[in-house]
Amino acid sequence: MAKRVVLLPGDGIGPDIVASAVRVLRQVFSDRPEALSFQYHQLGGAAIDETGQPFPEETRAAVLASDAVLLGAVGGPKWDQGPGHLRPEAGLLALRKALGVYANMRPVRAYEKLLDASPLRLDVAKGVDLLIIRELTGGIYFGERERGETASAGRFAKDTMYYTEMEIRRVVKKGFEAARDRKGHLTSVDKANVLDSSRLWREVVDDMKKDYSDVTVEHVLVDSCAMHLVTRPERFDVIVTENLFGDILSDEAAVLTGSIGVLPSASLGDGPGLYEPIHGSAPDIAGKGIANPLGTILSAAMMLRHSLEEPERADRIEEAVARVIDKGLRTADLARGRESVSTQAMTDAVIAAL
Amino acid sequence: MAKRVVLLPGDGIGPDIVASAVRVLRQVFSDRPEALSFQYHQLGGAAIDETGQPFPEETRAAVLASDAVLLGAVGGPKWDQGPGHLRPEAGLLALRKALGVYANMRPVRAYEKLLDASPLRLDVAKGVDLLIIRELTGGIYFGERERGETASAGRFAKDTMYYTEMEIRRVVKKGFEAARDRKGHLTSVDKANVLDSSRLWREVVDDMKKDYSDVTVEHVLVDSCAMHLVTRPERFDVIVTENLFGDILSDEAAVLTGSIGVLPSASLGDGPGLYEPIHGSAPDIAGKGIANPLGTILSAAMMLRHSLEEPERADRIEEAVARVIDKGLRTADLARGRESVSTQAMTDAVIAAL
Ligand SMILES: CC(C)[C@H](C(=O)O)[C@@H](O)C(=O)O
Ligand SMILES: CC(C)[C@H](C(=O)O)[C@@H](O)C(=O)O
Repeated sequence: MAKRVVLLPGDGIGPDIVASAVRVLRQVFSDRPEALSFQYHQLGGAAIDETGQPFPEETRAAVLASDAVLLGAVGGPKWDQGPGHLRPEAGLLALRKALGVYANMRPVRAYEKLLDASPLRLDVAKGVDLLIIRELTGGIYFGERERGETASAGRFAKDTMYYTEMEIRRVVKKGFEAARDRKGHLTSVDKANVLDSSRLWREVVDDMKKDYSDVTVEHVLVDSCAMHLVTRPERFDVIVTENLFGDILSDEAAVLTGSIGVLPSASLGDGPGLYEPIHGSAPDIAGKGIANPLGTILSAAMMLRHSLEEPERADRIEEAVARVIDKGLRTADLARGRESVSTQAMTDAVIAAL
Repeated sequence: MAKRVVLLPGDGIGPDIVASAVRVLRQVFSDRPEALSFQYHQLGGAAIDETGQPFPEETRAAVLASDAVLLGAVGGPKWDQGPGHLRPEAGLLALRKALGVYANMRPVRAYEKLLDASPLRLDVAKGVDLLIIRELTGGIYFGERERGETASAGRFAKDTMYYTEMEIRRVVKKGFEAARDRKGHLTSVDKANVLDSSRLWREVVDDMKKDYSDVTVEHVLVDSCAMHLVTRPERFDVIVTENLFGDILSDEAAVLTGSIGVLPSASLGDGPGLYEPIHGSAPDIAGKGIANPLGTILSAAMMLRHSLEEPERADRIEEAVARVIDKGLRTADLARGRESVSTQAMTDAVIAAL
């Protein structure tokens, strides 16, 4: 039976880059075209325009019935003024929660040919090869909120960072497993010198250590981690952390190697996985045909590996992308003044390299 | 009458570097030795060893009666196992709260001679000249906490990020004032697409804009800011943000220019100010006489400017330090394999340059 892939192009450059990834997927399955089925649905600003909701009921039903979800990007200035729950980002958060994708996996690696776009010195950037696993469905993103008036200090606002042991355990488990498959080193990041939720996080990690004696574990405070990502990024293998810290640190990590347009992500739970590039919807270049499709194409490869049991085809896509980068082909975001190619041409090159 | 300076050497290299700063202060006041009085008190691990408390009552009384407080550093592995409220860090948090120092000012600038110790490419690092103002007595650092058991998901832990309008207004005011004295640009950092406390923060900033028409204001999300600090740090002038975001971003910013050993900080409220270097207590080199005293010496200069109404003497210290760095003198932390000088010799050089 065909594996059902739901495509959520979203806003800005989203439709262009998702179309590229679909072309690559069709090519890599050219021997078995019936193996994948694609269904398009709305999310974010596009969905607001059409239905009034950033995460319409129809989209919810479709993703829950799917095997995997491939997302472009959401958001743009057009929808920035609406109330919080009617913004594109709210649709993204609701999508994550609906799918229960609690583990956001963000690999960051150095591509030699892209290192000249890195803000870091070459000797610092070249050793980067890390995976950040961010808890994605808990913490202060989903805790209780409150707004009101105080007696003498004006208005107040309150957000709650809440974690249960179960929530921590399942994402940390992904961390241990990933470390085992990689270099065997796990860095758990918290703020245990201040936060109770971090102290519980640290206790759970220490608890689980005994079941993974082949993995070395260290605890690093979030402020130190923010420093070390810049000064000694090569010291990290797998980093696991809570939602808000992961949001900040994974974005910081994403710019280290000059390749943000190329970085994929996978968000995993117990059901269908969610796959999307790291970069945003880039409304300023939407429709110009110059967006970089590689982050989405590599996200599609992660989808084949983690949700569709097609690791060999995933390898083939990743190798094709690496070859194209190696040849020096670049979209405008990576060109730094040199010649650049269109979204279409970059996609053609990946297909040719398959 | 003499201005009363309370000295809190703390742990690790703290006593060495505070002693250096005191020598420099005495020298810069050699024409009026009676203008400053110094009193030593305990904080952190040293205080735990002597009194069982990281912030003893006697220290509290002394700092509250002072004109300014100069702190070395606290913490070390020796005290890492105790319960949370009996760790050195708890003493630091209690000290901040007791003094009501709600605005932590952390200037970061590039010293040309130190740029080879920066992890950034020279062209990215050389333009760095920014000031991070971190809210220091509110937010999730001081909100309610709770731990307990859930029915089916194991233990839970909860922290609360709470802000009032008054707390936001007073620290943002420091931001506008500092921007006015610098390049006229204020970046307010929040996570307003997720957090209610950030939405209130943003409303207060927008409210205050009209009173500072000479300052340009932008709102940047914390994850974007973590990226831009690495890719385009020269775009920032003054950054103002809440406690936890400020903890992470100010540490990230501190490593950009290769000069963390040299960076000072000032924490200001409505009473005595608190001054301390950015770096930690470095227990591994404590007592070896090789610690870098410049961060503490520059913190003493900030103390003269912000708490003791001695801006000219502050300038003299800052110019002396800049000259010493320019001459190529380096302590071990900055030497990168070249010749290095002791804490003592570095202090002598600053005194000679005064
Ligand atoms: C859009 C926003 C809510 C989202 C987040 O903070 O999770 C984004 O920054 C991300 O990291 O995917
Ligand atoms: C020691 C710790 C509690 C403290 C903080 O997080 O405020 C430190 O990291 C700092 O930034 O001064």
